Amino acid sequence: MGSTQAPSLEAHLNTILPSKPHKSLRLNVIPSLLQTIAQVAKVLRTSSTVSQVGTANTFGDEQLNVDVLAEEAIRAAIADCPSILTASSEEDPLERSKGSCITPMSEDESEEKYTVAFDPLDGSSIIAPNWTVGTIIGIWEGETALNQSPAKQVAAILGVYGPRTTAVVAIRMPGTEGSCFEVGFDGTGALEMVRSSVKLDEPPFKSRYFAPANLRSAAEDPKYMGLITHFIAEKYTLRYSGGLVPDVVHALVKGHGVYVSPVTEKSTAKLRRLYELLPIALIVECAGGLAIDSATGERVLEKQVADTDERGGLVCGTREEVKAVEKALLA
Amino acid sequence: MGSTQAPSLEAHLNTILPSKPHKSLRLNVIPSLLQTIAQVAKVLRTSSTVSQVGTANTFGDEQLNVDVLAEEAIRAAIADCPSILTASSEEDPLERSKGSCITPMSEDESEEKYTVAFDPLDGSSIIAPNWTVGTIIGIWEGETALNQSPAKQVAAILGVYGPRTTAVVAIRMPGTEGSCFEVGFDGTGALEMVRSSVKLDEPPFKSRYFAPANLRSAAEDPKYMGLITHFIAEKYTLRYSGGLVPDVVHALVKGHGVYVSPVTEKSTAKLRRLYELLPIALIVECAGGLAIDSATGERVLEKQVADTDERGGLVCGTREEVKAVEKALLA
Repeated sequence: MGSTQAPSLEAHLNTILPSKPHKSLRLNVIPSLLQTIAQVAKVLRTSSTVSQVGTANTFGDEQLNVDVLAEEAIRAAIADCPSILTASSEEDPLERSKGSCITPMSEDESEEKYTVAFDPLDGSSIIAPNWTVGTIIGIWEGETALNQSPAKQVAAILGVYGPRTTAVVAIRMPGTEGSCFEVGFDGTGALEMVRSSVKLDEPPFKSRYFAPANLRSAAEDPKYMGLITHFIAEKYTLRYSGGLVPDVVHALVKGHGVYVSPVTEKSTAKLRRLYELLPIALIVECAGGLAIDSATGERVLEKQVADTDERGGLVCGTREEVKAVEKALLA
Repeated sequence: MGSTQAPSLEAHLNTILPSKPHKSLRLNVIPSLLQTIAQVAKVLRTSSTVSQVGTANTFGDEQLNVDVLAEEAIRAAIADCPSILTASSEEDPLERSKGSCITPMSEDESEEKYTVAFDPLDGSSIIAPNWTVGTIIGIWEGETALNQSPAKQVAAILGVYGPRTTAVVAIRMPGTEGSCFEVGFDGTGALEMVRSSVKLDEPPFKSRYFAPANLRSAAEDPKYMGLITHFIAEKYTLRYSGGLVPDVVHALVKGHGVYVSPVTEKSTAKLRRLYELLPIALIVECAGGLAIDSATGERVLEKQVADTDERGGLVCGTREEVKAVEKALLA
C-alpha cells in the first residue's frame, strides 16, 4: 500500500478520461461527489450519539439522524453540479429532475448530462457499535438511470468511513476496460491519491477471504451450507462485518475475497439494484473481479433497472471464486 | 442509545469511585488515558496511507507506522501521570518502572500506585481496508501486574476507532460489583458520556449474535464445527470483523453476543493474557457478561499473569451463551 509521488486527482482523472467530452465529469461531478464523502465523514465523527429520528424512509427502513444528515450533504453537492440533471437515493427513491433550477450552462458543459443514484449511508445496523460504514454512489450518463443499458453507469464511488476516510472510485466509459483507484482524505478533508490502481490479485493467492451474508439462510439451504463448509475446510479466512461497503472494500484492498449474499426460498433478495448492486458491480469489475446475481447467475451489469426498488442477490469479488460459488449455489 | 442530561466524566467517576483513596485514578489516570484514545484516533485519521515501518515488535509481529505512533501517544500520557509507576505494552512488553523520573507527589496522591498494561493498536490485519480497530488498556493497583491477583486490575479501557471515536470503560474495586460505561469524543477530542451504564441484556433476546474467531480451525475440530452449525441452525446473526475490540464492543452495544476464539490441537492460543484477555474480561464482566479461557473453561480473571507473553483462548459475552459454548467445546 501507499504510493510515492502520488498524482493529484485531477492529473489522474486526466489520464483516465478523454479530455473534451467528459470535462464536467472530470472537473466537477467526480471531485464534488468525492468531497461529500469527507463531509459525511465529518457528520459521523461529530455525532457521538446515534439516534433514530422517528421517521422511516420510503422503503420502511428505520432512519437514523446520521442517515438524514448524509443524504442532505450529498443532495447539496448534487444541487451545485450543473451537469447532474437527475438524482435519486435509497432514502428518497424517486428520480427527480433538477429541471428549471439549472443555471444556463457554459458551452463546454452543455453536452454533458448525468444522473446520480446513491445510498447515502449503508450499514445502519453497525453504526451504533461504531463499525466501519459506507456510502455508495452510481453516476449515469443521461437524464435517467431507469430502463437504460447498465453500460451508461460510467462511474461509481464507495465512501468508506472507518478510522480513516477513504473512497474507491471506478470509471468505465462504454467500450473501455475501465479503471479503479483509491483516495484518502486527511483530517482537514483534503484529498490525496492512495493507490492509482486497485486490482484484485491473480492466482495463486496468498490468503483467501470469504464474507457470507445472511448466513442464517444456510439453515434451510443445503447448497449454501455446503459452500460454507467448503470455505472452512479449505481454510479461507472469515471477515464479515455486515456492511456491504466495508465487506467489498476488504477484498479490494487485500487483493482477494468473495462476498456471498444468497437468495433462497425463504430469504428474498434484499440488496437494491440501483443503489447498491450496480455501483458495487462496476467497482468490482473495474478492479478485475466479477459480480453476479446469486439468484440467476447473470452478471449484475447485464440487466437494466426498471424500478428504483428492484432487488437482487449478490456474489462478487475475485473472478475464480465467484464462478466457483455460482457453480455451488446454482448448479 | 444516547442520553439526555448526560453527567460529566468527573461527576460519573465520582459516583463510582469512593472519593479519597482513588483520587488520582479518578482525576488523573483514567481521564488522561481516555484522552490518549482521542489522540490515537487523530493519528489514525491523518494517516491516509498505512505503511510498514520495517521493524518488528518483540513478539515478531510486523509493525505498522500507526502502531508506533499509537504506542508513543499512550506512553507520553503515562509519563505525565505521577501515580502510574510501571507500564508495559504488546509493542514493548517489558515492565518498566518509571522510577526516578517521578516528581515528588502531593500528600493526597502519595498513596496511589498504578501499573498500566496496554495494546496500543489491536487489529493490524484490518487497518489497511479501513475497518474499525481498537486500543486495549488494563490498569492495575500496585507496582506490577505480574504474579498478582487479577482482582488488582481495577479498571480497563477499550478505545474504538471507527466512523466515530468511542471508548468503553470498566471500573471494579476489589469486593465491588463493578460498573461499565461508554464515552464518545467529538471532532475536537472533547469527551462526552454516551451511556452511563453498559449492560448486556437478560433473556429473552431480541437478536442473537456470534463472532467465531479462527474459523479455519473448525476444519479439524468437530466440536467447533458443530458449534458453528448450531449457531447457523438457531439463526444467530454473524458479525465477525477479526478485530477483538470491535467484535467485543459489538456485543456490548447490541446487548447480546458471544465471541469464540477456540484453542485446538493444531491451532495454539494467540491472544495475550496481560494485554488483551484480562482487560477484555474485566469489561465484559462489568457489563454483566462472562469471559472464560476456551482451552480450560476457567474464568479469565481467575488466573494470575506470570509472564507478559502468556497466551490463552477466549469465549466471552452473554453469560448464557458463554456457558453453552463451554459445554459444546469442552464437555
